[in-house]
Amino acid sequence: MERIGFIGLGIMGKPMAGNLLAAGYPVTVHSRSRGPVDELVAAGATAGPSARETAASSDVVITMLPDSPDVEAVVLGADGVVDGIREGALYIDMSTIAPAVSRRIAVVLAEHGVDAVDAPVSGGEAAARDGALSIMAGGKEEAVERAQPIFDVLGKATTRIGPAGAGQVAKAANQVVVALTIQAVSEALVLARKAGADPALVRDALLGGFAQSRILDVHGQRMLDGAFDPGFKLNLHRKDLAIALQLAREEQVPLFATAQAAGLMDALLAQGAGERDHSALFTLYEQLAGEPVGDPQAHEA
Amino acid sequence: MERIGFIGLGIMGKPMAGNLLAAGYPVTVHSRSRGPVDELVAAGATAGPSARETAASSDVVITMLPDSPDVEAVVLGADGVVDGIREGALYIDMSTIAPAVSRRIAVVLAEHGVDAVDAPVSGGEAAARDGALSIMAGGKEEAVERAQPIFDVLGKATTRIGPAGAGQVAKAANQVVVALTIQAVSEALVLARKAGADPALVRDALLGGFAQSRILDVHGQRMLDGAFDPGFKLNLHRKDLAIALQLAREEQVPLFATAQAAGLMDALLAQGAGERDHSALFTLYEQLAGEPVGDPQAHEA
Repeated sequence: MERIGFIGLGIMGKPMAGNLLAAGYPVTVHSRSRGPVDELVAAGATAGPSARETAASSDVVITMLPDSPDVEAVVLGADGVVDGIREGALYIDMSTIAPAVSRRIAVVLAEHGVDAVDAPVSGGEAAARDGALSIMAGGKEEAVERAQPIFDVLGKATTRIGPAGAGQVAKAANQVVVALTIQAVSEALVLARKAGADPALVRDALLGGFAQSRILDVHGQRMLDGAFDPGFKLNLHRKDLAIALQLAREEQVPLFATAQAAGLMDALLAQGAGERDHSALFTLYEQLAGEPVGDPQAHEA
Repeated sequence: MERIGFIGLGIMGKPMAGNLLAAGYPVTVHSRSRGPVDELVAAGATAGPSARETAASSDVVITMLPDSPDVEAVVLGADGVVDGIREGALYIDMSTIAPAVSRRIAVVLAEHGVDAVDAPVSGGEAAARDGALSIMAGGKEEAVERAQPIFDVLGKATTRIGPAGAGQVAKAANQVVVALTIQAVSEALVLARKAGADPALVRDALLGGFAQSRILDVHGQRMLDGAFDPGFKLNLHRKDLAIALQLAREEQVPLFATAQAAGLMDALLAQGAGERDHSALFTLYEQLAGEPVGDPQAHEA
């Protein structure tokens, strides 16, 4: 089995690295924070002192980091992946970042004889834990094929979208759809409730027709329960919409709804709600419609 | 079996009346246009010369009409249902209209000893034909129970949302979600395609994660195929958003996204696209992003 270096052990990266360990891969882990490193070392991983050294002792290097600058720093910065990675190794970035950055990194690594695959995911923390992620891959066909056994441990479905950067384009599209569907369900449920209908029954009824979505099912239930622990944090989703809107600007595509949703998310971030689940967009509508906020019991009063 | 009077034999009403006939109900039909009446009479129905006379010879009167004024005219207008319907009969309106109109009609009919159920549907023409509609019902519990055997012929799931008007509130919520999900998928697929990704692969990948929806599945495929024959017509969906926005105004709920989507639909109506399927919202994004429109083959060039 290929030796894996896994860099970035946050809410997503830690369970993913754990699943690779459990599948029998030798895994070297590296992270800014010590806690998750110690946990994975206790489960059989090796601690990598730096990104460079982690890469030097691995056949496949995986990063799972918050944003484009983090990936650029870890890969191209001082003591970075590019300084340690060996010719013939494979680099897989599973972070959600700008497609242009993925393409730039692929060009730099190619000069070192290293194939790069961008492979952002959908499904959230639960899917990361259960090895049930949906993976959108960009890169050379043979590079994605080499990554496939690893993807099969981490996810339930992998789609190769196209060359380097194409995985990130698909992920940007994914985050647009998810944000706007959350907004759709928020508008619908706040309207229904304020107009006197039981939003739980409305959700049930809508799940049986063309309004059905996984968001109505999962995030609609969160809205009904007032349960906004992440899940997927609002500030990360706002970051992903910034990637989509930057891409839209480069490609000259007017994303009216995405731009509006990003603005509404900003209003929530200004309230300090960035660490809540992205379905908390619902609470902005509650506030603006003069409805009770915070205590889900209050809605039933 | 109860004798049914069915008024309104359009794209939805005709197959619904046909299914009731096929289930063995005695059905009297009435419609502005002669063609569908003749078709259903050939299948065993009786022609009702007016709404009043259709109601007079029925135990259950069903209307399936385009908009609030149509229902008001047929029920409360000259030679209307209210002039013919007998005490103890049941009135079911399956049209999508303003909740306030449903409530007003329920009050008038109650004075004649008639229970009213508002029971708008989701699922479109295919579900109407297959008896697989999703039905959102408002009205007294015993009235909805009396209607249930009829709903079981027409649909696969009925949810009683609450008293008179509540079915229409749920339907307004449904149409908000459907419109905004179509917009979400439009923004995502146009962005992905213009950024160089194959939109068919992006749709496949997104169906496996949190972006999954019935709209992405069905209407996303229509967008890829450039197949915009209805289905559900844009001008009817725009009418439904007007109902939702009027309700939102009455209830003071700011539907930012719904208002924006209604404006984009207006731009398509101004182009004469009102008879196309509502998924044609995608074509407005294509135009505004400077992409080829109309010939789906052109997208592959």
